Amino acid sequence: MAEGSVRLNLVNLAHRPGLEIIEANLGYTFKERKLLEEALVHRSYPNENPDADVKDNERLEFLGDAFIGLVIANHLYTRFPALHEGHLTDHRSALVRRETLARLAISLDLGTHLLMGSGEEASGGRERSSILAGVLEAVLGAVFQDRGYAVARGFALRLFKDELRRLIRDGVPKDPKNHLQETIQAQGMAPPTYRTVSEEGPEHARLFEIEVLVEDVVLGRGHGMRKVDAQRDAAREALLKLAEARD
Amino acid sequence: MAEGSVRLNLVNLAHRPGLEIIEANLGYTFKERKLLEEALVHRSYPNENPDADVKDNERLEFLGDAFIGLVIANHLYTRFPALHEGHLTDHRSALVRRETLARLAISLDLGTHLLMGSGEEASGGRERSSILAGVLEAVLGAVFQDRGYAVARGFALRLFKDELRRLIRDGVPKDPKNHLQETIQAQGMAPPTYRTVSEEGPEHARLFEIEVLVEDVVLGRGHGMRKVDAQRDAAREALLKLAEARD
Repeated sequence: MAEGSVRLNLVNLAHRPGLEIIEANLGYTFKERKLLEEALVHRSYPNENPDADVKDNERLEFLGDAFIGLVIANHLYTRFPALHEGHLTDHRSALVRRETLARLAISLDLGTHLLMGSGEEASGGRERSSILAGVLEAVLGAVFQDRGYAVARGFALRLFKDELRRLIRDGVPKDPKNHLQETIQAQGMAPPTYRTVSEEGPEHARLFEIEVLVEDVVLGRGHGMRKVDAQRDAAREALLKLAEARD
Repeated sequence: MAEGSVRLNLVNLAHRPGLEIIEANLGYTFKERKLLEEALVHRSYPNENPDADVKDNERLEFLGDAFIGLVIANHLYTRFPALHEGHLTDHRSALVRRETLARLAISLDLGTHLLMGSGEEASGGRERSSILAGVLEAVLGAVFQDRGYAVARGFALRLFKDELRRLIRDGVPKDPKNHLQETIQAQGMAPPTYRTVSEEGPEHARLFEIEVLVEDVVLGRGHGMRKVDAQRDAAREALLKLAEARD
């Protein structure tokens, strides 16, 4: 029985019908097809099928994450010669955030062709954005491993083309602090102020708790390892409260 | 006077004598020398000299950080075909951590030739590991920008050669939790236990405070956004206390 199931898995894998479809969606043909096979295996699959001789995609995800990081950093560096580092970082975060990667994975139909354990599948794993983002990173890692930096870079930039256009058109999604400030000032009130409530922990693992006040009323409270993160967190909560108050 | 100081800065920059020395140390000659010039400017310099037409190195640091990330990821992926993602990540963290980058910066004498504001300099900035690590990243970003991925990759791997050897010989520096456990058990005591003291903040910015106990005595306390980080932090403190107790 166990042996039969192993054979079944191997047969399945040798005939994975999705691979040609994915290559067509990608507009890319692998020199080493098994890289694509590996990219399309969620870790829940070998976990549930320990006898199947299948590697999961996490090594390729590791590679792909670093690859996308450099491609996007390089593109932004060149495309925005006047942007300072902090803004380059914001732009990159906007481009490579989980939702964006998951959206690209959906556009390529990667979720459909991902091998996945039945438990993960039953709990909606095929639609989970962290899993979709991971498989997109793994596929990009596979392309990088297949053809090297220059070819893979061209491929990745084509894939991100619409996202890059959208970013240039709309700019980086607004920082919650700016968003809150504009919202408050549009109502004719003084700009929000931030107050550090507590500051704990050793220097290398500082934790800040910060409140945001609007006309002496605490509208939100946030936490973070850097003050600015705690402030953003507080601003997010305040925006949520203001939105709820409007409803 | 102000104009005089501008001219002085420009003259200084046009004759920066360190650049040839750095190129000799690097074993690399830039096609575009001004990339190296830019890499050797800490942000405190234009901050203190707003009239000088000098860019700081933070854009190149942004690029270099992503570049090193991919070079090291790719090298580890290839060199350790059996290592799973978590271990690849640990290896990479060990290689690109601030102390390692600062050590490489010192070996190339980058600190000496870094333009820096006098305030930063007076407070010991030239020896600060964050600044040294940043200038190393910026120089690697400059090489990448100067010659592209393939050439810059070869350069970076030569630079990291000894660090890579050390890693292969000694392995990843021990996780403080393992280190503490081994230290404690070597003394014939029961393994340390961890206790969550507090857990604060919203789900996306959770903060944990965790104590580590050895035979019912609190030996360390740590903070982190993930439990495991807070535990490591606590273990680090406990190891420090044990080391102090031995002295």
